[in-house]
Amino acid sequence: MTREITIQGTVAKGYESVRDAFTSVLAGEQPEYAGQLAAYVRGRQVVDLWVGPDTDGDTLYGVYSSTKGAAYLVAALLVQDGRLDLDREVAYYWPEFAAEGKGGVTVRELLAHRAGVVGVPGGFGPEEITDDRAIAARLAGQRPYWRPGSTFGYHALTMGALVGELVFRASGGHTLQEIFEERVRAPHALDVHLGLPETEEPRFHSVLPMAPNPEQRALLDSLPEAPHSLLSIAFNGNGAHPTDIESFPNSRAVRANGPASVGGVASARGLARMYAALSTGIESGPPLLTADTLGAFGQIHSIGHDVVANTHKAFAVGFQATSECWYPFLGAGSVGHSGAGGSQAFADPSSGVAYGYTRRRYAFPGGAAVENERLALAVHRAALSA
Amino acid sequence: MTREITIQGTVAKGYESVRDAFTSVLAGEQPEYAGQLAAYVRGRQVVDLWVGPDTDGDTLYGVYSSTKGAAYLVAALLVQDGRLDLDREVAYYWPEFAAEGKGGVTVRELLAHRAGVVGVPGGFGPEEITDDRAIAARLAGQRPYWRPGSTFGYHALTMGALVGELVFRASGGHTLQEIFEERVRAPHALDVHLGLPETEEPRFHSVLPMAPNPEQRALLDSLPEAPHSLLSIAFNGNGAHPTDIESFPNSRAVRANGPASVGGVASARGLARMYAALSTGIESGPPLLTADTLGAFGQIHSIGHDVVANTHKAFAVGFQATSECWYPFLGAGSVGHSGAGGSQAFADPSSGVAYGYTRRRYAFPGGAAVENERLALAVHRAALSA
Amino acid sequence: MTREITIQGTVAKGYESVRDAFTSVLAGEQPEYAGQLAAYVRGRQVVDLWVGPDTDGDTLYGVYSSTKGAAYLVAALLVQDGRLDLDREVAYYWPEFAAEGKGGVTVRELLAHRAGVVGVPGGFGPEEITDDRAIAARLAGQRPYWRPGSTFGYHALTMGALVGELVFRASGGHTLQEIFEERVRAPHALDVHLGLPETEEPRFHSVLPMAPNPEQRALLDSLPEAPHSLLSIAFNGNGAHPTDIESFPNSRAVRANGPASVGGVASARGLARMYAALSTGIESGPPLLTADTLGAFGQIHSIGHDVVANTHKAFAVGFQATSECWYPFLGAGSVGHSGAGGSQAFADPSSGVAYGYTRRRYAFPGGAAVENERLALAVHRAALSA
Repeated sequence: MTREITIQGTVAKGYESVRDAFTSVLAGEQPEYAGQLAAYVRGRQVVDLWVGPDTDGDTLYGVYSSTKGAAYLVAALLVQDGRLDLDREVAYYWPEFAAEGKGGVTVRELLAHRAGVVGVPGGFGPEEITDDRAIAARLAGQRPYWRPGSTFGYHALTMGALVGELVFRASGGHTLQEIFEERVRAPHALDVHLGLPETEEPRFHSVLPMAPNPEQRALLDSLPEAPHSLLSIAFNGNGAHPTDIESFPNSRAVRANGPASVGGVASARGLARMYAALSTGIESGPPLLTADTLGAFGQIHSIGHDVVANTHKAFAVGFQATSECWYPFLGAGSVGHSGAGGSQAFADPSSGVAYGYTRRRYAFPGGAAVENERLALAVHRAALSA
Repeated sequence: MTREITIQGTVAKGYESVRDAFTSVLAGEQPEYAGQLAAYVRGRQVVDLWVGPDTDGDTLYGVYSSTKGAAYLVAALLVQDGRLDLDREVAYYWPEFAAEGKGGVTVRELLAHRAGVVGVPGGFGPEEITDDRAIAARLAGQRPYWRPGSTFGYHALTMGALVGELVFRASGGHTLQEIFEERVRAPHALDVHLGLPETEEPRFHSVLPMAPNPEQRALLDSLPEAPHSLLSIAFNGNGAHPTDIESFPNSRAVRANGPASVGGVASARGLARMYAALSTGIESGPPLLTADTLGAFGQIHSIGHDVVANTHKAFAVGFQATSECWYPFLGAGSVGHSGAGGSQAFADPSSGVAYGYTRRRYAFPGGAAVENERLALAVHRAALSA
Repeated sequence: MTREITIQGTVAKGYESVRDAFTSVLAGEQPEYAGQLAAYVRGRQVVDLWVGPDTDGDTLYGVYSSTKGAAYLVAALLVQDGRLDLDREVAYYWPEFAAEGKGGVTVRELLAHRAGVVGVPGGFGPEEITDDRAIAARLAGQRPYWRPGSTFGYHALTMGALVGELVFRASGGHTLQEIFEERVRAPHALDVHLGLPETEEPRFHSVLPMAPNPEQRALLDSLPEAPHSLLSIAFNGNGAHPTDIESFPNSRAVRANGPASVGGVASARGLARMYAALSTGIESGPPLLTADTLGAFGQIHSIGHDVVANTHKAFAVGFQATSECWYPFLGAGSVGHSGAGGSQAFADPSSGVAYGYTRRRYAFPGGAAVENERLALAVHRAALSA
């Protein structure tokens, strides 16, 4: 006898198929599965669903690299303000960055994962890895792992710090986290936190470790130890204190600091609302980014073989080019970011969709959970018909 | 009881195997299959075959992107004349093109599908799409879909217009179509028409729609709707009047204008003869392009993951690098272009082969029909032995 | 009844598993298999194994492109000396190289296989192909097969000559072979010879031709003739005197001249010792390359689709980026080079491993023999535990 599990929450008329898709996801998951799905279309929330023990629409999860979307939004605001120029050298704002052949790297190239500073020999220490300015200080003097510009690779744990340092320098001393809070999170009431206040802690549900099935377990066990590979370096696995990614957001220090690469805490509602706010505006409000800024940040820049991920990836300016990287049914110019635990979030300007998905249990094998494909397709298809 | 179908036409001594290969193609096709195959080797026609109801060697088909070969030939003539410089910025000839970050794009990069202007938001209108100068005017002001130079993607419906505008500006007001007619088609008696005269209309056979088998049908039906994907934009599927590619050449307006991306009408004889004329010369005549020009246009420039086609592609300067893109047995420096309906055409300077293939029915799933591999191999093998 | 074959030689404590791995390799080989495996870890030799009729640890084999490692080491020494600058144009040192659009190619780009001069139309003659200066003279005037910088491809038979000419010019007239002998081979007693003295000839065992099984034979036979493909050009198969790669080192002229692309003769001991000498130093001696030079030469530059090899490859500055190209368990910054006959050699600075493998019989289908994966994994795993 199967325990009956029911998706909670609401969908707008015309989006019933999204609830069905979410229900179908449960069949492949363990009974204690917990997750959230939210979507806006042209500024109106049309999907607001969740499921799982003690879970509701306001539950907060560690969203790993979906945090980066917030970081890029802050960078885009500074570009829109004229305080940051994508085509200037990074070293114009941050002179120390010029070391070791990085003097010619532009802001645009840095954001497009082309600078090659994905980590440091010997790794970052456990305090350092939660401190964006400390990370940035180490990276400034670092020799790139590849010739800047010749290729690209995912700056998994460093990109937020790099963008943060640029923001700090270009804004005259404001941290990325402060700007996000003041200009984005608070005014738009977004449940996306780069630095979770103590008062919101009760809503946070810790990440549960990956629960691979025997086949998946065998696959993971078959991978040879590779502590100094680019992938390991990029996930800070190469030092005396390798970062345990699966429990990273479970540390209060991480949640308190909110490092901009992978330290954010959010709900699906929050993620979807953030992408609605930046692309279409919420309800009848104006979007945070003009069509011009959004277009500039949605321009594909790095696509093909990702040297770090060792597979096909696609980045626009910072943001993942979600249509090229994940879901080819989306419109060109879609911007978003997935997270290691399974989260996914994006805006598709062509269809007006803003999407957010979170789950509590770390998804095998890391990265946007596979169910996002079905869920994003359902949302997109319904939006096209609406 | 099978109806006996026999390939018509002639092959030179030593090329009997090509006829056999063509015969073997028929086994996999429907009884009403119609197509043509022609080849020159070092300027002499060695293959002149056709088959199908009411078909002969002079039947004309819509050859879609095989048209682009004619466009690149005109550009190459202007480069050879010294009127167009591959390493100048496009904006030198066409100032409006500098908009939206395209000021640094060189002619060479534009031709190598690196400029990123594969379409426009909202699509082109039905008249616009048959009018190269109208297409070009829209594209001049367009933000590239990717950072120019960072990658490449197939400019399916726009490349002919872009080259055409360059030719128009560099030639002092002559259209690509006029130059092709005067310098290429008429003097060499080529049945390749960028603008089919009314008088030739009786020889044109309309494109028949793709006839997928049930398995192919299922595959096509399984593809999610993606109206705003780069691929859809590049085939003008993203607007209020999406272009129906399968019937595009069936419109007299298209055939009359001969837009240089996909509006050409030709026979296999015409295509093969064009590539012979440009690479080896026909009979004892000199080639249209010097070895130096041909070498310059055959230099590989864009190879790897094509952002639009979403698969491996290879372009030289405009021309497909046919040996890298399609048939690895060909010589390096081969130049050519396939067409969506199934046509294929190229010159291989190493073996002296010039090849043309056309078919009436749109081939599944679009692009150079699979039978070209067998046919081109047979021609090439025979030429090596000759 | 199986003839008992036993691996000869020694392994240090903790490396017993490497001997087991080598034993397991024999199961898949013919009874007369002959090969050698050697490894250093942090300057100390920990693996010294061999097997096969008349074979010992001092037997010398043709190691094909593993020779290139020696060539890059010489280039690195000149860079370290300040005599060669990776970011200068090649033409600064070698003015003739500027012809045909190569004036902007830097030393770094040349070494990263980006210049596009992989061969010449009509091929090299049989004497020419053993003479690096003659090869270089032909290449100087050559039009690149691809737009320099736009992509990369393996310069299989030309890279050693190109580097050699640069070394000759930058050093004031010393050949790469001379510098290697004087600064590397002799002082470190390495059995890696770019120019094998007559006196050492008795230790050389000729390459035995590939012995494909019936399935492999069928696969090879199915490949169409492609004499003018980039791959064929790069292996000098396109001329009147196509090079027979499988017997190339069996000519005394090749062994005497030691062309720096593929003409070296070495033992596994020699290869491993060379990579130890360059990366960690041998025993307590200093390494030939400083950490800075090694880092500079280990920086990834060309990664992705290799235009010549027509598959995924990864090059740093000259050296293969062995971790990205072959064995993902190795550390980032690993440098090495495989050889067509099956040899493999590299240094992994993170683990301190220097590895050398040779075999007598040309391995199917050419390139680093598959057994290297198992052997390198065993060495690396043992080194991590040591």
